[in-house]
Amino acid sequence: MIFRTFWQGRCGKMNYQIIIFIIGWILKIEGTFMLLPILTGIIYKESALWAFVIDGIICMLLGVLLTWKKPKHQHFYIREGFVTVALSWMVLSVMGAIPFMITGTIPNFIDALFETVSGFTTTGASILPEVESLPRCVLFWRSFTHWIGGMGVLVFLLALLKMVDGSHMNLMKAESPGPSVSRLVPTVRSTAKILYSIYIVLTVLEMVLLLVGGMPLFDAMTTAFGTAGTGGFGIKNDSIAGYSTHLQVIITIFMILFGVNFNIYYLALIKKWKQVYKNEELRWYLIVIVSAILLIGWNIRGVYDTFGKALQQSAFQVASIITTTGFATANFNDWPEVSRTLLIMLMFVGASAGSTGGGIKVSRFIILLKSSAKELLQYLHPRQVRKIQMDGKTVEHEVVRNVNVYMMIYVLIFSFSVLFLAIDGHDLITNFTAVAATLNNIGPGLELVGPSANFSLFSYPAKVVLIFNMLAGRLEIFPLLLLFFKETWKKF
Amino acid sequence: MIFRTFWQGRCGKMNYQIIIFIIGWILKIEGTFMLLPILTGIIYKESALWAFVIDGIICMLLGVLLTWKKPKHQHFYIREGFVTVALSWMVLSVMGAIPFMITGTIPNFIDALFETVSGFTTTGASILPEVESLPRCVLFWRSFTHWIGGMGVLVFLLALLKMVDGSHMNLMKAESPGPSVSRLVPTVRSTAKILYSIYIVLTVLEMVLLLVGGMPLFDAMTTAFGTAGTGGFGIKNDSIAGYSTHLQVIITIFMILFGVNFNIYYLALIKKWKQVYKNEELRWYLIVIVSAILLIGWNIRGVYDTFGKALQQSAFQVASIITTTGFATANFNDWPEVSRTLLIMLMFVGASAGSTGGGIKVSRFIILLKSSAKELLQYLHPRQVRKIQMDGKTVEHEVVRNVNVYMMIYVLIFSFSVLFLAIDGHDLITNFTAVAATLNNIGPGLELVGPSANFSLFSYPAKVVLIFNMLAGRLEIFPLLLLFFKETWKKF
Repeated sequence: MIFRTFWQGRCGKMNYQIIIFIIGWILKIEGTFMLLPILTGIIYKESALWAFVIDGIICMLLGVLLTWKKPKHQHFYIREGFVTVALSWMVLSVMGAIPFMITGTIPNFIDALFETVSGFTTTGASILPEVESLPRCVLFWRSFTHWIGGMGVLVFLLALLKMVDGSHMNLMKAESPGPSVSRLVPTVRSTAKILYSIYIVLTVLEMVLLLVGGMPLFDAMTTAFGTAGTGGFGIKNDSIAGYSTHLQVIITIFMILFGVNFNIYYLALIKKWKQVYKNEELRWYLIVIVSAILLIGWNIRGVYDTFGKALQQSAFQVASIITTTGFATANFNDWPEVSRTLLIMLMFVGASAGSTGGGIKVSRFIILLKSSAKELLQYLHPRQVRKIQMDGKTVEHEVVRNVNVYMMIYVLIFSFSVLFLAIDGHDLITNFTAVAATLNNIGPGLELVGPSANFSLFSYPAKVVLIFNMLAGRLEIFPLLLLFFKETWKKF
Repeated sequence: MIFRTFWQGRCGKMNYQIIIFIIGWILKIEGTFMLLPILTGIIYKESALWAFVIDGIICMLLGVLLTWKKPKHQHFYIREGFVTVALSWMVLSVMGAIPFMITGTIPNFIDALFETVSGFTTTGASILPEVESLPRCVLFWRSFTHWIGGMGVLVFLLALLKMVDGSHMNLMKAESPGPSVSRLVPTVRSTAKILYSIYIVLTVLEMVLLLVGGMPLFDAMTTAFGTAGTGGFGIKNDSIAGYSTHLQVIITIFMILFGVNFNIYYLALIKKWKQVYKNEELRWYLIVIVSAILLIGWNIRGVYDTFGKALQQSAFQVASIITTTGFATANFNDWPEVSRTLLIMLMFVGASAGSTGGGIKVSRFIILLKSSAKELLQYLHPRQVRKIQMDGKTVEHEVVRNVNVYMMIYVLIFSFSVLFLAIDGHDLITNFTAVAATLNNIGPGLELVGPSANFSLFSYPAKVVLIFNMLAGRLEIFPLLLLFFKETWKKF
């Protein structure tokens, strides 16, 4: 048995004080972020802005209350990390849903929660049949939740607050996607700052390019938020289809960029090109994208006037699905079966670890494939000692086991969600792709939840399952699942 | 790194002589088995019997030729075991397909091979739109291939031939389903004999009960072969639907019985009841069956006159799918979505290890679930040493890794098969369930390959993919996959 040095652990009582303290800070941050939709409301003279004023005040008051008493012990371990992340995201979502209810845009709580969780988890699945009639401040908030959720609100907090280092890595690990998270620089705080800086720069860059390309400012901002967080909420009923090809190509490129591990950008910034070049996940991520674009482009060449147009449409949809963004410029539900099947496969592949994208992640598949090949070869040469290598480094057994368990629980949650959705009586492809689209944080599926449809058809119990799936997908299952373990809450 | 004591290995040159020798014996056995359809043809005075005479002679001649020279070295290892099993099954299928072509019942080679592989692998997927017009000797052969394939032709050979023991365990392991195979008694030959004896007794018992229940002899024999091998080829166009409820119930019970690990029957015979009681796979296998019967029965209660009838129909279909038999008494394609989804889930669960059934196997799921729970708890108590236990014994890491790799390759083969089938342009559910039904050796799927349909709609390339899936499913992937590894054929 290997001791967990990767996930630092400890025995003893759960440090509730620090959990409450951090949740308090999360609320203060959310309250502060509400200033942005308020500002939008002021500019567009919308009365809906008062919903954000009220909700912002509640968030701040609760936040101040919860952070009033500084915790005695700053240390916290993997258990606290998981619990904090899971609870923070729940609180964040509930408070974020209130403006939808106050403004009356989404009066029902479950619906409002669905929309907000979909926002923060960067899923982009909507229960709204149309969005163009919504107040601009609401649309802004809706898209901004993607941006917050993309890089992670706890990572934001880590960049902001000076805490005792080291053990806070557990917080970052619990919120960041992928099988393993590494610090770019010695301190977690600096790592978080670097990540958010890159995130902001890329978002602004896209916004500027969209503006230059002729998109109105409001559209450019919300679209950039949706792309950056790989979210997918649009402000138009036809998503991105109404914008020019030029703008669609810009969005395509940025979707792909935001699906890359942000470590790569840091490595490029400090000119460690050799490491960038050696990165296997990046290489395979790009290989899969290019192959899928070509295959689907060829498959749908008859649907469009020119092969070029088919390729461009294929590229947009492939980038949107593999990065789990969920924007659409075409109703791929009507595409031929090969393209539909390929897109479903891409839904599961997902983006890179350490990106803002969801899904199972390219690196997990690389690890699984390598360990499978290793095991098969082991049959032939039983006495050879083999280790899996990735990016030139040995992959620890622990990471491999972790990936295997992740896959298993993923499959279980997936199957039972599909079964649960079946109670509503919709067809299997709708149920299957609805779960795929939420658990992988994509947004649209096929058939009744295709890109030109929405999720309002599901019953409330089904929506609760999908809300769980979105959170499980964004937080990569474990934090959420451990909440239900009796042992998590036990003193030991 | 743990050394493989489980899979005995060796370095050196591949022992081609013994591979050829064993394939020769397989041919002789197949040739001998042809006597049964010949006898059927004589009884029913069918000219089609000549096809079996010709094919039988070819088998015997080839068999005698290949076994002419006794191999110098009798030992063979896991590599030889895998290659022998994979090649034997291919030879068996090709030779078994010839009578279909000679008689003209299935003139095309790919179609005839599909039907034969479907028979030997106990899948039961047919390309024939109707079977009642077929000569009886052909119907007999078709059902008998299930019986041969169920327990395994190499296991039969092991029971027959006196070979050097010990290393031949590799042959048995490579052909027997499940994550681990153990000898019941010290010698492999006696183990194989015991297994076949139980198999024959159970088959005859079912046949007698069906006869007593009023089924004609020919029907009783072929139905018993189909049940015993968990195959599913019927001799009626409506499968089992035309038979009385009494007969359907008998078949239901025997389907469930043949999905149990045969070791259990041996343990019962030698009165080790405590071990039977402690067997976790058996317990979960029965729990899953009962739960599924109740859930589906409740779900389809509106489809039938009484709840009792709904339960009986539910029981038949559940037993047929989970044991991967594939008989049908109802067109479950028309059942409500919850039942359809549950049946699809059961397709993957499969029967028990060491039974004649296919699928992923209950024990693999138990191991996966236990290792997942272990990993999750490890997060909470990082310094505790945990081991997975099953039936009161520790499960080796090696077995867990093996199961994980199995799942991974399974998912890969599954996904790419669905993608490949999509080229034909049929709907996703058809493609998805066609792959599920072949890779798990069930037979019918949903939609265009539902219980009242057949597999003739697929193109030849698609059929080749499905043939591969059936063999991969029956031989549990690894033997077949290793054929494609360059390293398998290398001297080292």
